[in-house]
Amino acid sequence: MIRIAVDAMGGDHAPSVIVDGAVAAARHLDVRLALVGSTAAVEQALTAHPDWRSLGLEVVEAPDVIGMADPPVASLRRKPKASIRVAAELVASGEAQALFSAGSTGATVMAAHAAFGMIPGVDRPALATTIPTRQSPAVLLDAGANVECRPAHLLHFAVMGGVYARLALNVERPRIGLLSIGEEETKGNDLTREAHRLLKAAPLNFIGNVEARDVYSGAADVIVCDGFTGNVVLKISEGLVETVESLLGDELQGTFSSQVGYLLSRRAFRRFRRRVDYSEFGGAPLVGVAGLVIVGHGRSSVKAVRNAIAMAYRFAGSDFIHRVEQDIAAAAVPHN
Amino acid sequence: MIRIAVDAMGGDHAPSVIVDGAVAAARHLDVRLALVGSTAAVEQALTAHPDWRSLGLEVVEAPDVIGMADPPVASLRRKPKASIRVAAELVASGEAQALFSAGSTGATVMAAHAAFGMIPGVDRPALATTIPTRQSPAVLLDAGANVECRPAHLLHFAVMGGVYARLALNVERPRIGLLSIGEEETKGNDLTREAHRLLKAAPLNFIGNVEARDVYSGAADVIVCDGFTGNVVLKISEGLVETVESLLGDELQGTFSSQVGYLLSRRAFRRFRRRVDYSEFGGAPLVGVAGLVIVGHGRSSVKAVRNAIAMAYRFAGSDFIHRVEQDIAAAAVPHN
Repeated sequence: MIRIAVDAMGGDHAPSVIVDGAVAAARHLDVRLALVGSTAAVEQALTAHPDWRSLGLEVVEAPDVIGMADPPVASLRRKPKASIRVAAELVASGEAQALFSAGSTGATVMAAHAAFGMIPGVDRPALATTIPTRQSPAVLLDAGANVECRPAHLLHFAVMGGVYARLALNVERPRIGLLSIGEEETKGNDLTREAHRLLKAAPLNFIGNVEARDVYSGAADVIVCDGFTGNVVLKISEGLVETVESLLGDELQGTFSSQVGYLLSRRAFRRFRRRVDYSEFGGAPLVGVAGLVIVGHGRSSVKAVRNAIAMAYRFAGSDFIHRVEQDIAAAAVPHN
Repeated sequence: MIRIAVDAMGGDHAPSVIVDGAVAAARHLDVRLALVGSTAAVEQALTAHPDWRSLGLEVVEAPDVIGMADPPVASLRRKPKASIRVAAELVASGEAQALFSAGSTGATVMAAHAAFGMIPGVDRPALATTIPTRQSPAVLLDAGANVECRPAHLLHFAVMGGVYARLALNVERPRIGLLSIGEEETKGNDLTREAHRLLKAAPLNFIGNVEARDVYSGAADVIVCDGFTGNVVLKISEGLVETVESLLGDELQGTFSSQVGYLLSRRAFRRFRRRVDYSEFGGAPLVGVAGLVIVGHGRSSVKAVRNAIAMAYRFAGSDFIHRVEQDIAAAAVPHN
């Protein structure tokens, strides 16, 4: 049976939201979940679910916590019993098949790297986020694991994003685009121009540069960029959707007829929100490390945690790592 | 009287949209407009406005055009009579007080730089775009004039953005934020970390790093970033707003009650769109060059051209360049 290590202490509302999400996932999946954290705190959160012992849940003691703002490298060194480290080691030892954490992304990346190392041929891990488009969902990577990237890293990301799109989004021949500020290959910055050259030469379905305004139109199935740019893209989108909703709400309070309109269209709004709501996807896989890791949003809701654990479960049932190894070898990917 | 040089040949729908927008502006402003371009083509477009000769419009011959996809440097060298060059030279010679172009941004930046040079102390120009926020509008720069930036350039942008916010947005003490991927000064990439240090030491109302998710919430009046990131921010926002509208439209067609809701709330939608519609602002000043330049979107509508020319008119009546000179000197801005 698949066993998933859950960092019960990671996230803005840990452990309660994490534990509630894990319980919800365990009710619907044929899975064993190891809740890693302070036994006292986790068991306290579990008291809300009196039947938890019948759900395939167990608590694994890890007395230390790395906070969202703690410096990852120094904290991991100082805290060998931090929940994220203990959880990553369960995967490294084969006791669990995948890891979920909604804690500090930096600490998760470091702990995973230390515990399993990288897939051969890959230099840097990347966060692969699923985003909605006017057509089907697409994968954007790196969403923030690496802020300084070299051209070869973007090629690795393209190969891994392609494997992920085939496995997770069921796209047979994913269209891979490079995020830049102009469609011509001469447009962009030094990084994107050189990455364009590498992507063009690789055995990929590379469709060229994708401008930011086409990301949400569904022009590509896989959108490749450095982690600084990818993180800005996701965060600006989150903020803009919130602002659009809020401004629209202001406008719709103006008159009686638009209030009536608002009430009548509320159901449509709710359905629309679901399409742009990250919590539907739950988390983003950290690809490139030699183990399966799903990273959740620090502000994850119970539903987001449940969906992220379900994603880890599906991921653990795939042969993602082996497929990436094969594709990286086939692409004869140059190192930086 | 203020005279503005208008690149009549720049933009996806030039010269007709540019000429129509210029006529609309001339009807409402006490201004003289020099329409620079092929006399035959411009006069042809003017036939739609039989009274144009009474509106303070004149045609300045420039037989060559630089297209949106033409390489800027090579094209400018090859075409001394390109409309953007002739228009920039009208400003350099003092025959016009400001320039508007909706043509290739690269060619406009190069032509302006060649014609007037830079404001003393500034190394690189930047496009200062006005964006809507949940509160009042804010300025984001650089929106795409320079894709490779050094930390000192971001400091110059901060100083110029501050002057612009005071003059154009009437913010007495603009809050200046550095776009990064984490609020702590240690977060971000090499560029933002070093820029943070420079901004903190300068005589500015620097509020620290601003995360992308807070750009549209109005956390800062001036948002500073490199031109690659800034361009991605604007284009992703454009694409996302279009996608939101389209997805919402799909949802609202689902049921009778939501259709009724849509009809009733349509006016609210229209008012909302105006708040996020770039054409309301019309254009973005190119700051840092020693002359006044407004850059329009390639897809500018007639209304956008009219509003951009109105912006150039207000800009020409301000002492922007002098104020930037003073503030750059006061900041004792280091060079790269």
